[in-house]
Amino acid sequence: MYRSHTCGELNASHINKEVVLSGWVQKTRDKGFVIWVDLRDRYGITQLVFDEERTDSAILEKARTLGREFVLQVEGKVIERSSKNPNLSTGDIEILVTKLQVLNESLVPPFTIEDKTDGGEDLRMKFRYLDIRRNPVKQNLIFRSKVTMEVRNYLTNQGFIEVETPYLIKSTPEGARDFVVPSRMNEGQFYALPQSPQTFKQLLMVGGLDKYFQIVKCFRDEDLRADRQPEFTQIDCEMAFVEQDDILKAFEGLTRHLLLEIKGVQTAEFPRLTYDEAMKRFGNDKPDIRFGMEFGELTEVAKHRDFNVFNSSELVAGISIPGAAQYTRKEIDQLIDWVRRPQIGAKGMVYVKCNEDGSYKSSVDKFYNQEDLSQWAKITGAQPGDLICILSGDTAETRTQLSALRMEMAERLGLRNPKEFAPLWIVDFPLLELDEETGNYHAMHHPFTSPKPGQLELLETDPAAVRANAYDLVLNGNEIGGGSIRIHDKETQATMFRHLGFTPEEAKAQFGFLMDAFQYGAPPHGGIAFGLDRLVAILGGQETIRDFIAFPKNNSGRDVMIDAPAFIDDAQLKELNLKLDIQS
Amino acid sequence: MYRSHTCGELNASHINKEVVLSGWVQKTRDKGFVIWVDLRDRYGITQLVFDEERTDSAILEKARTLGREFVLQVEGKVIERSSKNPNLSTGDIEILVTKLQVLNESLVPPFTIEDKTDGGEDLRMKFRYLDIRRNPVKQNLIFRSKVTMEVRNYLTNQGFIEVETPYLIKSTPEGARDFVVPSRMNEGQFYALPQSPQTFKQLLMVGGLDKYFQIVKCFRDEDLRADRQPEFTQIDCEMAFVEQDDILKAFEGLTRHLLLEIKGVQTAEFPRLTYDEAMKRFGNDKPDIRFGMEFGELTEVAKHRDFNVFNSSELVAGISIPGAAQYTRKEIDQLIDWVRRPQIGAKGMVYVKCNEDGSYKSSVDKFYNQEDLSQWAKITGAQPGDLICILSGDTAETRTQLSALRMEMAERLGLRNPKEFAPLWIVDFPLLELDEETGNYHAMHHPFTSPKPGQLELLETDPAAVRANAYDLVLNGNEIGGGSIRIHDKETQATMFRHLGFTPEEAKAQFGFLMDAFQYGAPPHGGIAFGLDRLVAILGGQETIRDFIAFPKNNSGRDVMIDAPAFIDDAQLKELNLKLDIQS
Repeated sequence: MYRSHTCGELNASHINKEVVLSGWVQKTRDKGFVIWVDLRDRYGITQLVFDEERTDSAILEKARTLGREFVLQVEGKVIERSSKNPNLSTGDIEILVTKLQVLNESLVPPFTIEDKTDGGEDLRMKFRYLDIRRNPVKQNLIFRSKVTMEVRNYLTNQGFIEVETPYLIKSTPEGARDFVVPSRMNEGQFYALPQSPQTFKQLLMVGGLDKYFQIVKCFRDEDLRADRQPEFTQIDCEMAFVEQDDILKAFEGLTRHLLLEIKGVQTAEFPRLTYDEAMKRFGNDKPDIRFGMEFGELTEVAKHRDFNVFNSSELVAGISIPGAAQYTRKEIDQLIDWVRRPQIGAKGMVYVKCNEDGSYKSSVDKFYNQEDLSQWAKITGAQPGDLICILSGDTAETRTQLSALRMEMAERLGLRNPKEFAPLWIVDFPLLELDEETGNYHAMHHPFTSPKPGQLELLETDPAAVRANAYDLVLNGNEIGGGSIRIHDKETQATMFRHLGFTPEEAKAQFGFLMDAFQYGAPPHGGIAFGLDRLVAILGGQETIRDFIAFPKNNSGRDVMIDAPAFIDDAQLKELNLKLDIQS
Repeated sequence: MYRSHTCGELNASHINKEVVLSGWVQKTRDKGFVIWVDLRDRYGITQLVFDEERTDSAILEKARTLGREFVLQVEGKVIERSSKNPNLSTGDIEILVTKLQVLNESLVPPFTIEDKTDGGEDLRMKFRYLDIRRNPVKQNLIFRSKVTMEVRNYLTNQGFIEVETPYLIKSTPEGARDFVVPSRMNEGQFYALPQSPQTFKQLLMVGGLDKYFQIVKCFRDEDLRADRQPEFTQIDCEMAFVEQDDILKAFEGLTRHLLLEIKGVQTAEFPRLTYDEAMKRFGNDKPDIRFGMEFGELTEVAKHRDFNVFNSSELVAGISIPGAAQYTRKEIDQLIDWVRRPQIGAKGMVYVKCNEDGSYKSSVDKFYNQEDLSQWAKITGAQPGDLICILSGDTAETRTQLSALRMEMAERLGLRNPKEFAPLWIVDFPLLELDEETGNYHAMHHPFTSPKPGQLELLETDPAAVRANAYDLVLNGNEIGGGSIRIHDKETQATMFRHLGFTPEEAKAQFGFLMDAFQYGAPPHGGIAFGLDRLVAILGGQETIRDFIAFPKNNSGRDVMIDAPAFIDDAQLKELNLKLDIQS
């Protein structure tokens, strides 16, 4: 038996007990006649004490040789501390050690195992097993485990069945790029790893399982952006005999449960915004509504003067930044530079200072009078002391730019409070999205999403106008879930595939099994999927998903700890009937 | 709203309620003036009634057109049935339908959606989504979901943390064959899919997580035997600061909990048998102990006569088959033919009939007298009326053959009661196994398994004799779990790799990260993994794992429903820097 207690559970009630503890040396303080050692395990830290008076001299000497991260087993008596540490649950006691065994030694770790470490990102990833010993990382992983258990318990109590769907499936060129797996037993053929269990969960509905969920790894071979992982985890859900409202209610319930159980936060009914409304008010289909600064559209009221920039713009829109009227010229110039950075791409920015005395000072005073500016203030909701920032141009671009500015200002002003949670639904997404490069339409969610009732005909005449039974759940400016009511009849599905540019042969080759299934009594059904990594990060008050993944990959898709991917044997390649085809 | 109730919940207390139901047509009975339709969903079956007297004629006519597996939504009133069905929870009532909508039609399904279907295995797999509508398959999937939730709740309550380990890892030639995944971003390099999260869970212990579990898919590219899947699910567990006994206790607790919660079966403390003892008594390291027929070793007592077959055998062993003394000559000959089949491979079989009058009649009466045979009966535990079957030859082969005979006879005699559960631990496995083909030793569990204390030196002189801190959990003749206490210091691990034929360079290339980790204070640790597919099947009273997997693959590793694996585009291959290398 390596221990009678953990390093996190002893307190004054255990005084005089003989105990056995095991753990790691967090730190040692050697005062010569007395040595203290902080012994750490997952559960906490307990102070060990060795002194000349009470400790066997051989043990005292051995204690002097202990280094950081040595693994110890100690026996001893729980005694009261003379100077107590009220910040530690074990701070009232210490262990007077009578037996000391070094279970394993340790090299000096490449970074300190402290809440604030001196290790850089790369080093921490290479030695991730040491990084996990640090409280913040360890607590994130424990937190993740807790969230997933809450999800499972809630959904199970609601009658959902967790079903494992296969990982070795079939490649479909549609959507993102698949990871593929060569099949040794089926010469020249490949499996694909699932980008999501989408078709399988639909087949489970056809199979009558009624309410399905799964917490499941998904895979996308995309060029990685910061904080995106080639493998990620989804809470994948599907229900039969439901309309959109049934799904929204069911998963609003889940989200509300998580916020209450995990964060102790009560939430009212989630607002529902149409996609169009969200774009108009926030320039974004995942608006952070913890703060205001909603867009004011000035197009109509700003075009009657000689200011050409506005007159030639499809959209003129502004936001009011609270308390920013006192910005200096230099600060405002920096803001203009910020929106003109290539990442944002605005051509310029017009501003209006709303002075405390009710007057206005703008960068376009030449063109607009106080009455004009007062109207702008009204539309953007600006109060005395605020600064109105106005962008203009193409509608979609301007909204995106202004949304970026809105988020940046909220960040700078500390309005994105990680302890506040503001969920909302975005509904009525467009069914199709125009690919600017190819001129083709592709599915905004995926090709199984159903159009709103009665809109199927619009596909022929005005594809961009067709709205879908598709919805996203947004939390604090992040999309945490998205889904749709699916098509469940073969004809509609065939029409969709045709509009997405599939020939009937391609549709049959890739999704024939699904269209076949639709011939045998497919029920109406729909679902949703949550990005677990992001959900956990946001609930944890953070936004970097990597910190909530035990063994993440870097931006080149590499695991730098195990050094994967790697070259494989020629024999292995040969067995798979493959040759490398590298231009060198 | 598609339904106010499910098809499984209405009873006499709902009489006169107006309800809305949705589901599938299980069957229709058309008596002309009255039509009954059984409407089915996941939760049950409710009878609908349409008749000339009470039903609108248009609806009645529509009801006549309904085919099997049509999807309906109906509104109507709950009424009392005139002839009740006590076998159905909804058997007291029926629905007098006032509105009928066909939500989807269905072709005639290729097999009947009944508990006993007319569909063969291949057809059922191709149309798995229809197969899942059948009660036995659906209930198996629901049962699996229930078992996994019980596992998760139990382990979570015991302080285990579920941590997701990566799926895109690194190929290691050791052990079974990996599935590999070409990396597009890292030219010419490959990830591998995990055969198990073994090294990652060990790193989590190095990382101080203390108690880990994960229910996780694992992958092995092996030539498939019947009822083996290329992807399978493991309950993967690891604990730090434990000895073998701690692990056995912890997971005996889990198993006992499952048997109690899922099957209502109380179990006593699990017996522990050493590997050597199990081989001696049952010829098998996963003995089914629900019944007797333990081996009696007759080698010593059968070699003093002139019977050359026994005299030249390393082992002579027999089992006593209860009540089989009355077998006819023909039946016994068939048994002899059975053990001589190439799959079993015995050269012959000696038998002794233990007559009711206390006398013996054997196939070797020429060589052995009644006193000899009486001694054999004593050693094999044979009673009057039993038949002793004796095999002989090389020890290992004879044991395997006699074990097969023991299992076959238990099957024939109905002694393998699926409602009885007899778990036991097998401990003290050999550390190494001789590969007869290559003459090399390889790890019986895996190369991270620790030898028993003090046996490391034996590795040099008598590798086969070294016993490991390795254990299996056996239930009803199936290995449901296995694990070991791991090596946790770099030197022992390096010694093990050397004995397994790794050069230091190979060991470093493949497991360098683990050996590095062992330098930074690795704690003593150990774990276990359960095969979830098999565990669920056995708890479900069956042995075919395929029946407990939603979308299984066939024996060629194919998913015949989605038709995977499949060929991929040349463009996809090119992006991966690969060429097919097929000899045609």
